[in-house]
Amino acid sequence: MKKKHTILLVNDDGIFSPGLRFLIKICKKIGKVLVVAPEQNQSGMSHAITVDKEIKINKLESSKDYEEYSCSGTPVDCVKIATKKILKKKPDLCISGINHGANYSISTLYSATLHAAVEGTIEGIPSIAISHLDYSSKIDFSSYDNFLENLIRKILSSHLIKGVTLNINIPSITCKDLRGIKVCRQGKGKWIEKINSKKNKFIITGHFESQDKSKDTDIWALDNSFVSVVPIQIDMTDYDYIDNYNDLDDVFQIR
Amino acid sequence: MKKKHTILLVNDDGIFSPGLRFLIKICKKIGKVLVVAPEQNQSGMSHAITVDKEIKINKLESSKDYEEYSCSGTPVDCVKIATKKILKKKPDLCISGINHGANYSISTLYSATLHAAVEGTIEGIPSIAISHLDYSSKIDFSSYDNFLENLIRKILSSHLIKGVTLNINIPSITCKDLRGIKVCRQGKGKWIEKINSKKNKFIITGHFESQDKSKDTDIWALDNSFVSVVPIQIDMTDYDYIDNYNDLDDVFQIR
Repeated sequence: MKKKHTILLVNDDGIFSPGLRFLIKICKKIGKVLVVAPEQNQSGMSHAITVDKEIKINKLESSKDYEEYSCSGTPVDCVKIATKKILKKKPDLCISGINHGANYSISTLYSATLHAAVEGTIEGIPSIAISHLDYSSKIDFSSYDNFLENLIRKILSSHLIKGVTLNINIPSITCKDLRGIKVCRQGKGKWIEKINSKKNKFIITGHFESQDKSKDTDIWALDNSFVSVVPIQIDMTDYDYIDNYNDLDDVFQIR
Repeated sequence: MKKKHTILLVNDDGIFSPGLRFLIKICKKIGKVLVVAPEQNQSGMSHAITVDKEIKINKLESSKDYEEYSCSGTPVDCVKIATKKILKKKPDLCISGINHGANYSISTLYSATLHAAVEGTIEGIPSIAISHLDYSSKIDFSSYDNFLENLIRKILSSHLIKGVTLNINIPSITCKDLRGIKVCRQGKGKWIEKINSKKNKFIITGHFESQDKSKDTDIWALDNSFVSVVPIQIDMTDYDYIDNYNDLDDVFQIR
């Protein structure tokens, strides 16, 4: 008999988020599932880890092919504890999501949904992050049921994700209106913040503004009814800048 | 008379950290200084922002050319509030640090010292992060006094940092033993974690392990008595992977 795949699930919206629950349902059809997810909402936590403080986990469910834990730490902490303390061997896939809200363009930097998956990649696990453009807690994911099951099965059998994290965003349309999937780059964009203040207290909100009209970006793909897939790397070096750094020789001659 | 430069200072170790205090002393000699730094230690917070929660700031000091605020939010929040609520116009430079502890190689992802500076870059401000390899709170920075003053003055007059963040790390040696400065790439490495557990409670610690012997890396530079300077980009796309994505065509044909 073929050995069952093991899938590690994590998110940043918290253990009881509908997006994660939908993903659990799909993954249970595919293989063994371990869920380690934050006990509270950790949106915007990026690649944060808990330093010098205790992280607590609670086992919520356990059966033959399914285990579920809540964790007091960040999404990245969840992946560290899952891989180093709970699992006996590396899972076949790590999926973070489904996030309620967009994680493309500049949000790549802020998104804990994405960065939990990046931590999976650092651990040598094929890892993907899935986000839905709608921020509502009441998204109807149901039309994407077969689509996502097929996508996950294909990724599991392809062995094509190595040293890279796939950042997948789903537009706010039903699956039958989807034009396809586009592998693309992170488009240039910015959050235009609105900071509401009351004396010395602030709440930051904002809206996204595209600064990129190219057709090879996640921004274009999502605006044109495609699911966007951006391969994300761990190396943040700007190599073009290094190539031109001769200009900096003078700046950096300091004794 | 020449107009004074304005420098925004931030860190992740907290407003009273000796590394930040040393930097304040240097920057006061150069121009006007605004400090907005976390009221508590925010190490390991990466590019985290505070979502849907109040952020509080407190003015601690204010004189003609100097203002200092503590902030309850993350280092990235500090930069957002400084640029959008406190400063009337963009500062000439944003410096994050000096961090007590290394922020090179894979730590680029976890470091809030670096990511506060990256947020400065997103805001269109020339931005640098400075970290010292020693994690002690009692580092003697004094031998780097002139070196850093010269470096900051040169960066301010060079206009060479645009759309890039310089991630600067200083080795644990006195300035007279320094062999120079190297512009280099982020070397490959990993944190080997040790997770101490007590029932269902965990504390994550670890040590860094290099996976890269090349001489063009920050790892090599720091091991060989150079200050490392890695230009960091906002775009995390893996372009090599996209170039090879034809292999993925089959995976992503899903309806």
